[in-house]
Amino acid sequence: MATEQQHQLQQEQPQHEQQKQEEEAAAMLVAVTTCKYSNRVLLKTILERDDGGVGLVGKRILIGGWVKSSKEETKDPVPPPPPPQAVEKESKVEISCIEIVQSRIPFFRSIINVLGGGNYHVREKLEKPAPRPPPPSIAFLQVSDGSCVATLQVHVASSIAPPCQLLPIGTCILVEGVLMQPSVLRKHVIELKVERILHIGTVEHDKYPLSKKKVPFEMLRDYSQFRPRTTTVASVVRISSALTFATHTFFQNHGFLYVQVPIITTTDCEGFSEKFQVTTLLGKADIKVKPNTRNDNDGVGPEVIKSAVKEKSKVIEELKRSESNKEALTVAVQDFHKTNELASQLEAREKSKPGTSLKADINFSEDFFARQTYLTVSGRLHLESHACALGNVYSVGPRFRADSTKRVAEMSMIDIEMAFSQLEDAMSCADDFFKFLCKWILDNCSEDLKFVSKRINKTCIAHLQSMISTTIEKISYADAVNSFKQVADNKFEKKLEWGDVLTADHLSYLAEEIYNKPVIIYNYPKEVKPFYARLNDDRKTVAAFDMVVPKAGTLISGSQNEERFDMLSSRIKELGLPREQYEWYLDLRRHGTVKHSGFSLGFDHMVLFATGLTDIRDVIPFPRSCGKANN
Amino acid sequence: MATEQQHQLQQEQPQHEQQKQEEEAAAMLVAVTTCKYSNRVLLKTILERDDGGVGLVGKRILIGGWVKSSKEETKDPVPPPPPPQAVEKESKVEISCIEIVQSRIPFFRSIINVLGGGNYHVREKLEKPAPRPPPPSIAFLQVSDGSCVATLQVHVASSIAPPCQLLPIGTCILVEGVLMQPSVLRKHVIELKVERILHIGTVEHDKYPLSKKKVPFEMLRDYSQFRPRTTTVASVVRISSALTFATHTFFQNHGFLYVQVPIITTTDCEGFSEKFQVTTLLGKADIKVKPNTRNDNDGVGPEVIKSAVKEKSKVIEELKRSESNKEALTVAVQDFHKTNELASQLEAREKSKPGTSLKADINFSEDFFARQTYLTVSGRLHLESHACALGNVYSVGPRFRADSTKRVAEMSMIDIEMAFSQLEDAMSCADDFFKFLCKWILDNCSEDLKFVSKRINKTCIAHLQSMISTTIEKISYADAVNSFKQVADNKFEKKLEWGDVLTADHLSYLAEEIYNKPVIIYNYPKEVKPFYARLNDDRKTVAAFDMVVPKAGTLISGSQNEERFDMLSSRIKELGLPREQYEWYLDLRRHGTVKHSGFSLGFDHMVLFATGLTDIRDVIPFPRSCGKANN
Repeated sequence: MATEQQHQLQQEQPQHEQQKQEEEAAAMLVAVTTCKYSNRVLLKTILERDDGGVGLVGKRILIGGWVKSSKEETKDPVPPPPPPQAVEKESKVEISCIEIVQSRIPFFRSIINVLGGGNYHVREKLEKPAPRPPPPSIAFLQVSDGSCVATLQVHVASSIAPPCQLLPIGTCILVEGVLMQPSVLRKHVIELKVERILHIGTVEHDKYPLSKKKVPFEMLRDYSQFRPRTTTVASVVRISSALTFATHTFFQNHGFLYVQVPIITTTDCEGFSEKFQVTTLLGKADIKVKPNTRNDNDGVGPEVIKSAVKEKSKVIEELKRSESNKEALTVAVQDFHKTNELASQLEAREKSKPGTSLKADINFSEDFFARQTYLTVSGRLHLESHACALGNVYSVGPRFRADSTKRVAEMSMIDIEMAFSQLEDAMSCADDFFKFLCKWILDNCSEDLKFVSKRINKTCIAHLQSMISTTIEKISYADAVNSFKQVADNKFEKKLEWGDVLTADHLSYLAEEIYNKPVIIYNYPKEVKPFYARLNDDRKTVAAFDMVVPKAGTLISGSQNEERFDMLSSRIKELGLPREQYEWYLDLRRHGTVKHSGFSLGFDHMVLFATGLTDIRDVIPFPRSCGKANN
Repeated sequence: MATEQQHQLQQEQPQHEQQKQEEEAAAMLVAVTTCKYSNRVLLKTILERDDGGVGLVGKRILIGGWVKSSKEETKDPVPPPPPPQAVEKESKVEISCIEIVQSRIPFFRSIINVLGGGNYHVREKLEKPAPRPPPPSIAFLQVSDGSCVATLQVHVASSIAPPCQLLPIGTCILVEGVLMQPSVLRKHVIELKVERILHIGTVEHDKYPLSKKKVPFEMLRDYSQFRPRTTTVASVVRISSALTFATHTFFQNHGFLYVQVPIITTTDCEGFSEKFQVTTLLGKADIKVKPNTRNDNDGVGPEVIKSAVKEKSKVIEELKRSESNKEALTVAVQDFHKTNELASQLEAREKSKPGTSLKADINFSEDFFARQTYLTVSGRLHLESHACALGNVYSVGPRFRADSTKRVAEMSMIDIEMAFSQLEDAMSCADDFFKFLCKWILDNCSEDLKFVSKRINKTCIAHLQSMISTTIEKISYADAVNSFKQVADNKFEKKLEWGDVLTADHLSYLAEEIYNKPVIIYNYPKEVKPFYARLNDDRKTVAAFDMVVPKAGTLISGSQNEERFDMLSSRIKELGLPREQYEWYLDLRRHGTVKHSGFSLGFDHMVLFATGLTDIRDVIPFPRSCGKANN
């Protein structure tokens, strides 16, 4: 009867008694590290102790978390409260039975209320015997609070809370209890015997998408709100969080300054990326277009323009043949582009019939920034203006590409830029940074890595360890192409020639088959790298590099950037980039220019690499990943 | 003649000799900490030593940086090379003169070449006397490399590099030399005597916007590429960088996990913010619109809809009067909103005339994500799905508001969310975090703070110090309103009543005049806070708070968020928010809900506060700040 009486005692004791007990409990809590802003103990601080928590036996603690798996065991017949059957048996002695039952009405009411979630009401007059409550039982719950991989076994007697509320996967509980060693030692060396329940967040059982079974990642993508509740995604988040802190620690320790680069930008960074446009025009009731100043009637119709285009392209051909005046050629090409643009604008205007499609001749002076603005593709150009004043700088943030052939629209990137540095410096920094990241998570995320290596990729830990000690191979693009020439013909669809882009297949073949370690490829043909990469003395290649890691592809891309005004200026011309957008960037070369280099690390790909995952959509769910094809 | 001969020696010595010298120089460099990825010494490591660098006298170092100010001093007549006047004097003795001059041609050529930047050519035959080169001089340069406030005095003899190239403000140099004590001790206890110049990045003098004089901040906004080269902006960047690292350190130390929330989102976070839309449609030649399925001819014209709107609003009024059926009222309100929306769509369609404005009935299934997407207004909703699985989480990143009345479009925000926590916990965490930031920069940015307090706001350091020791005042919104009732009538335009929004003026009056310390105001009327703030038992207020700091306004806003499904669901209905967008958010309450709270700190405003700056546009330049009004 002891526990029954205690139960009643707790319910009926006066307020100050309860307060005193709570104070005592709080004093007991001090022995364990409580989470400062929620007065609970993080499971990590118990379960990741060297002794697995055994040293904390007897401590009273408050924990919160979500049920990951559960089972119910019927209680041994020994302990009270007496099972309802006993009452029935006693009912043979009629008068005394009624006396006994009546004397126990408060008990029954409270027990039944708790068991049935407060929905059962015992009739005061006991006209019929009370409906049979379920037999007493214990709910065994595996609870996770997200602080570590391991779960704490929590057991709750049915007298404390109805098992039906606790058992469903996903249920949230906040409970107080005493740590003890389990009577039968199985997987767990410690468990929590709950004495008080502070909160239950129930689950609509049939609608909850997670279960005890492993849920396929593909399915999880449709439930991004619940993804972090799976052990794997939780581990990925913890590893990713550690990588973020490692990044800041590495660069701050090396004297880099953190700079927030703008996300909304007016500059088209690389000159060849698809961009998202940022606007407030679409939200308005109607989009105003520029008044039609040039139409078919003012004498400059599409036909006039078209013939001008033809003529101008002839001029260019002639200039190209003569090879005499490069400046004149560039000017002619620019002129040609302008005329061509005008022609296609007029054509678009012609085609647009009301009701089917609209003219894109939108008046952007009506837009928020009074001009066209985009989501940034890379932070490096903006970082340069800081590097060319402050030395070494870095930035972490989202970068965007509206490329529907890729799986990712919004990537997290780490960009760095260093003044007074050259290609070799950037490569050496990339090398150190990558190894620092690998070492950091081996040191700080061992339990998570053990879990992902068990669940996702068995070689994951060994792979990370080998990265730390390896010497990264450095080869020029030309050497890379040559080594492919020695590869059997049937390996790749097309024979690789100097000037070709190295595809992902080529790069992983280099890193995995030829060298079996990370490889840095440098001195690329200028055509395959952004305009700002520094032209080498051969005038054909640029001081750019990619770092390719086995099983992860290209993790880092970098370059020494062109510091010579004339060179940069002519690259902008060559590529026909809108020069007025780059005047600020050219200014950095006009005034106090300096050799500088830097790189970008694809953070999400680093997380893929560290965890052994292979699909980026499992690291960054919609809308950051996948275009319309998948959703 | 010693230096002249040395000069010649350096030019003519064989390659291996030079290599040996460079190795010796490298050995000397080891004594000072060199920057790992650029082989130069950061000025901070010299100038921020306790002895100001005196202990390093005699060390050979390589430094790089930009000229902040400069002067030229003519050399004392004693040291060689002999001034050209000497040659003229000697020309009286004709034959010997020619002999002497001829014997010195190599010298002259090299001197003149160096002095004139290689543009002067001495005629081989010396038909006329050589043109007068400028007299030898020393360029004294104050050089900054952005690593600290202080500059290093660098002096370069005109025999090493032409002063005209070095003297302009903004010139970039990379030089090797020996640290020595200046002959006359003025401001500097140490200076660098340059022996070798590795790089000069010149300045187009008349076009460079910065000068020795203090440039007004307003002007700097037009030159964001050069802003970090001013001492003040450089200090602001360094303080800002320290605050970023402090943020990660604080939360990682308290067991928070870093989560990257999506920037492109389909959810309208707060329900009342102006948003930027993200699209690829505007970049296309023409925007396709949906076929006109509902037009004036299909019988549902605008007039029909308008009369329906009138009728439905009557129904609502009646339901409100009767107060009988709240569910029915909510349904009626929803129905009314839908009809109203349809009416305004039709109206917009009516108004749109070809050539002046376009219908906004754009087919978003053609857009990149096949739906309307926005730039996120706040990260807190997405953070909740992580908090409700992992416990305590935080995120740092850009948040966007397309509000042209505000000065900022793109803010950097720190969002946090904690499971198993309530309003008091969030307030207590905000309190600790704010004080941690203040202490961190006092400990780590003392020189920068000294500079900004001299340049911007004298009380800056004392103010930060007082923040650390103060107890932040906590008052309820109701008490705040009451205290305003006691304020003299003429203080504010309008008498404040319960339910009114507290304006920036009110808040700063509270923090500066009434309490003279940071104040947390909590329990706001539900109407003035986002829909997700938890409804208090009075059903009128919500568990939301703002932390207001003297001279900085509201730095932190937070809340305990509604964990009860029914409450949240009816708030969404009440406010007429698009429920389908919030189903994922409601799911967190359907399954395993938990009490949770969090807050957002406006990072850019924290930088303003720390530096004493007052205009946000001086912390974050265009396009992050200012709308079309300013640009």
